[in-house]
Amino acid sequence: MTLTANDPSRKSWLNVPENSDFPIQNIPFGVFITKDDVITIGTRIGDYAIDLGALQQLNYFEGIELTDDMFMQDTLNDFISDGKKTWRLVRNRIADIFDINNPKLRDNEKQKEIVIFDIKDVEMQLPVLIGDYTDFYSSREHATNVGKMFRDPDNALLPNWLHIPVGYHGRSSTIVPSGIPVHRPKGQTLPPGETQPVFGPSKRVDFELEMAFITTDANIMGEPIPVNETEDHIFGMVLFNDWSARDIQKWEYVPLGPFLAKNFASSMSPWIVTLDALEPFRTAGPEQNDPKPLEYLQQTGEHAFDIKLQVGLAPENGEETIICNSNFKYMYWSMSQQLAHHTVNGCRVNSGDLMGSGTISGPTPDSFGSMLELTWGGQNPLKLNNGEERKFIEDGDTVIMRGYCQNDEVRIGFGEVSSKLLPPFSKK
Amino acid sequence: MTLTANDPSRKSWLNVPENSDFPIQNIPFGVFITKDDVITIGTRIGDYAIDLGALQQLNYFEGIELTDDMFMQDTLNDFISDGKKTWRLVRNRIADIFDINNPKLRDNEKQKEIVIFDIKDVEMQLPVLIGDYTDFYSSREHATNVGKMFRDPDNALLPNWLHIPVGYHGRSSTIVPSGIPVHRPKGQTLPPGETQPVFGPSKRVDFELEMAFITTDANIMGEPIPVNETEDHIFGMVLFNDWSARDIQKWEYVPLGPFLAKNFASSMSPWIVTLDALEPFRTAGPEQNDPKPLEYLQQTGEHAFDIKLQVGLAPENGEETIICNSNFKYMYWSMSQQLAHHTVNGCRVNSGDLMGSGTISGPTPDSFGSMLELTWGGQNPLKLNNGEERKFIEDGDTVIMRGYCQNDEVRIGFGEVSSKLLPPFSKK
Repeated sequence: MTLTANDPSRKSWLNVPENSDFPIQNIPFGVFITKDDVITIGTRIGDYAIDLGALQQLNYFEGIELTDDMFMQDTLNDFISDGKKTWRLVRNRIADIFDINNPKLRDNEKQKEIVIFDIKDVEMQLPVLIGDYTDFYSSREHATNVGKMFRDPDNALLPNWLHIPVGYHGRSSTIVPSGIPVHRPKGQTLPPGETQPVFGPSKRVDFELEMAFITTDANIMGEPIPVNETEDHIFGMVLFNDWSARDIQKWEYVPLGPFLAKNFASSMSPWIVTLDALEPFRTAGPEQNDPKPLEYLQQTGEHAFDIKLQVGLAPENGEETIICNSNFKYMYWSMSQQLAHHTVNGCRVNSGDLMGSGTISGPTPDSFGSMLELTWGGQNPLKLNNGEERKFIEDGDTVIMRGYCQNDEVRIGFGEVSSKLLPPFSKK
Repeated sequence: MTLTANDPSRKSWLNVPENSDFPIQNIPFGVFITKDDVITIGTRIGDYAIDLGALQQLNYFEGIELTDDMFMQDTLNDFISDGKKTWRLVRNRIADIFDINNPKLRDNEKQKEIVIFDIKDVEMQLPVLIGDYTDFYSSREHATNVGKMFRDPDNALLPNWLHIPVGYHGRSSTIVPSGIPVHRPKGQTLPPGETQPVFGPSKRVDFELEMAFITTDANIMGEPIPVNETEDHIFGMVLFNDWSARDIQKWEYVPLGPFLAKNFASSMSPWIVTLDALEPFRTAGPEQNDPKPLEYLQQTGEHAFDIKLQVGLAPENGEETIICNSNFKYMYWSMSQQLAHHTVNGCRVNSGDLMGSGTISGPTPDSFGSMLELTWGGQNPLKLNNGEERKFIEDGDTVIMRGYCQNDEVRIGFGEVSSKLLPPFSKK
């Protein structure tokens, strides 16, 4: 099917500010609550939120096979279950409805009032009910940095890392959309030099710059997804901040992996940008020749994506400092390889499952995707624009992640995931 | 509220075979499909499945605040959300309806035909939609055995183990009810003495004898549950077989924990036995004096439960051999401590979340809860009744776990979780 929605020459009759992440070529999917307290599935063009439930009721999706209430739901899971063909038909149709040359909705003031909202007047929700959340660990630079700090500087990468897209299961119940603040967690830590643990607020709260992809129902239990079919089962991507408590992690993670150090919160951007919209930004990933992956992980073609990523840190009532510039293309293992690996043992993947990339660190120190790496374990504090220093995240700090793709013709972006760290929870 | 449902002197007008796990004092909750293809929430007495949806429609729950379709659902999540007070009212009411001295349903043949099914005529389903699944590692004997085999025999327990109810996140999407067969997983392993991994079917498929508890909505994000309040948020328990592939696990698990070695399948018994029904079987757990747990894990009273556990292995078309006798009371960390620890960082716990105990090994070799321990890593094969030997589970083997509590007055059991290992998946 032609992705007419990707036509870079298309313009919309809705105003799109210069450098917007959301031109008519993007058409991401999300869920929002309107001023009238109605929850609906929607998309975004420029600074407008568009109610797809209302569009469906007004018959704008005629001819596309959809259940009657497909967009009048509080999650995208059912729509994602409908599969890639349907996603494409709907995305093409939306591009057509908002095309500058299409008068149907453009010239119908009454309908526009029902369908289109100022983005400031809606409240973005979690776009999917996340059944299972998996986090990978697929940036070679990140794994190397962590290995240098915590294990052996000369053998920083563990023996399995270049063979396996290492991953582990995370907690779905504490994934929240951008804008929801997060409490500093309490927990057990082992103070340096001590043998007995203590309990209290984490002293090393960190972010992890990640992206995540959202899957559709991909397989039955037992059935692997061949690596070359995996992209048919990836709906789209979001920005993802995998909040971490480094001191809790250090004490708890042997032998079964991170647990309370991670499951207090993860934050995601609310608009899912489809893999289709990212198509023009495919690029080659890092070479995988030494060693070559096992056959079930070998793929041809380009499966990395050139997505510029940025992290900002804003102290309470203070100006934001950009502390990291990275890129999704640095990932050693592609999303396809992650999904092929995840299912090679027959693990079932469902609509709405979320898979995080792991921290996306690049080759240069300013591209490291966590405070742990940026300050090298707290040894080299970061200087903020207001003169303050940071080893880790402090109460009142807001962490903002942004991401976008850009070529000569179009910019496709993710907006942002922004969340503030609050002091430890206390009962009112 | 008095737990009149626990009255040991009560008898039912439904026949209960001798040594049944399901006397009228049990009243577990489950979900089943009837011969007429209707899915409903139900309970079990003796060898009868009872349709609670039908009972509700016939007005048997009058006076208890329940939404109209509470039991006409395909999961127990909403009912569990209603909280302990409601669970108790319903359980007491069911005990009353089926009390030998209550003629209302007993003498109404027409209604009995709608409400009561032979257990052989219903198909048990997964009783809850499991949002998040956590697996703990709380048997000291199991952790010690694993430590001896894989790490250091002289320092088998890791330094954090006696301070932390160690746990990690598992995969919800592949939890299946008793009776569903499981395919042998394929994956990467590192053959002994080699430096390059190979791909193929696991050669060391194992069971893990576990129990699991199911929670209700327990907290808001950020809010810890104090250890002495945790039992209010535990609905009930099931038997749980956490299938494992030891060779895949060994190669993948450093540093982020088990992943594909576990997430191909876990099997659970279909009837959730309430914590209330287990009340008479409370007992003291192992002493925790050396070291004392940190304050947030300290509890008074008895929080272990005396539940006899058994594992049987039946080769294809062969007789079953009992290969393990253990007990839930051996767990070092109680469910209360597990839940208090899980939430101490503010991790949100929802209705239908499932938390596994970890392998339940006792002090004697015949009480070890996995083939890994029973055969000491394959060194001492088990002899089956038919003369065959087993180091790990072979294709066609069925693993059956059973559990029950018994005192002089009553036996409360879990039935069984039984599942067969199939050869690796192949596309038809």
